[in-house]
Amino acid sequence: MEGVLTPEIWIAVAEKTGIPELRRTTRDEPDYDKLMRGRLKILDDHGLKLSDIQAVIGSLQPLAGAREFLDELRAFTQVLILSDTFEQFAAPLLRQLAWPTLLCHRLVVENDRIVDYQLRVSEQKQKTVAALKLLNYHVVAAGDSFNDTAMLCEAHVGILFRSPPNVREQFPQFQAVEQYADLMRLIKSAMG
Amino acid sequence: MEGVLTPEIWIAVAEKTGIPELRRTTRDEPDYDKLMRGRLKILDDHGLKLSDIQAVIGSLQPLAGAREFLDELRAFTQVLILSDTFEQFAAPLLRQLAWPTLLCHRLVVENDRIVDYQLRVSEQKQKTVAALKLLNYHVVAAGDSFNDTAMLCEAHVGILFRSPPNVREQFPQFQAVEQYADLMRLIKSAMG
Repeated sequence: MEGVLTPEIWIAVAEKTGIPELRRTTRDEPDYDKLMRGRLKILDDHGLKLSDIQAVIGSLQPLAGAREFLDELRAFTQVLILSDTFEQFAAPLLRQLAWPTLLCHRLVVENDRIVDYQLRVSEQKQKTVAALKLLNYHVVAAGDSFNDTAMLCEAHVGILFRSPPNVREQFPQFQAVEQYADLMRLIKSAMG
Repeated sequence: MEGVLTPEIWIAVAEKTGIPELRRTTRDEPDYDKLMRGRLKILDDHGLKLSDIQAVIGSLQPLAGAREFLDELRAFTQVLILSDTFEQFAAPLLRQLAWPTLLCHRLVVENDRIVDYQLRVSEQKQKTVAALKLLNYHVVAAGDSFNDTAMLCEAHVGILFRSPPNVREQFPQFQAVEQYADLMRLIKSAMG
């Protein structure tokens, strides 16, 4: 979702709150748990609550062209968004994308304080693709970052979208594109 | 989908084409393969093509209140529609429901003639719920008919919606409701 259809939520939070350490993403730190524990500690150190973060997310919009891309895609095939974001963060952006189905994680919240996070399951993107294959789906997956590459490997066809150079270099087996029109073309081609 | 969010497609086709044998559904014939083989033979005997059936489906609307029910549901949880319909039939109805994700089967079509059908996988509704449980989802499932009961058993909570008396009698373990407001209430209660 983030980087492909919406802005990176944590980067937006970093900018709005003026806390530069929150800018780190899975593009910078492939160990997701290490990244998340760090983020939650920073929030706590600064006294930031869930409602503060939600206020920031409520001011964000999907990337330009994302809604149109998704609308076109949903009219001819089935779409699931697999993300390492959290349900409590995603809703304002999902609304603007006309509520596509999103499988992701959950925050543990007590009195508006984010006290922990619950991964849906480890490697949930890859496992969801594996489950769809067992249900006899031909899976075409797209993503931008290190936390997408296991999913892209698992899918019948994997595509990198707006990936940073280090991801593209480490995974040259995937076609890499920058524009929604090119991504749509690759998806249609992969569907045969 | 059919009977819960949309009309029964085959009943509509039977009415528009004046072929009463097409009125049989999984409510009447629990053996889905037997039901489908019979339907395809009837279509062929009458020279009916895919485009004829699609024209009928294009004239249908979702059940009254279904869009509003689904809109409300999608705003607070993730929704997948599991159906024994076919992708080629579903699109005009999905559009009117704002493109919820639908997992279902495919028809095999040659020159507009429906020559066969491909089940996505046997017992796909039940298997999809089982897969979601492995992905650590708490699954609340609703359905109306015999081809839903394995899915309802597999789900953490199963609910019958607008079921005929014979289904309700054979599966008294499931709460059975008739109105979207009651279904919404049960879903929210099941989510805890």
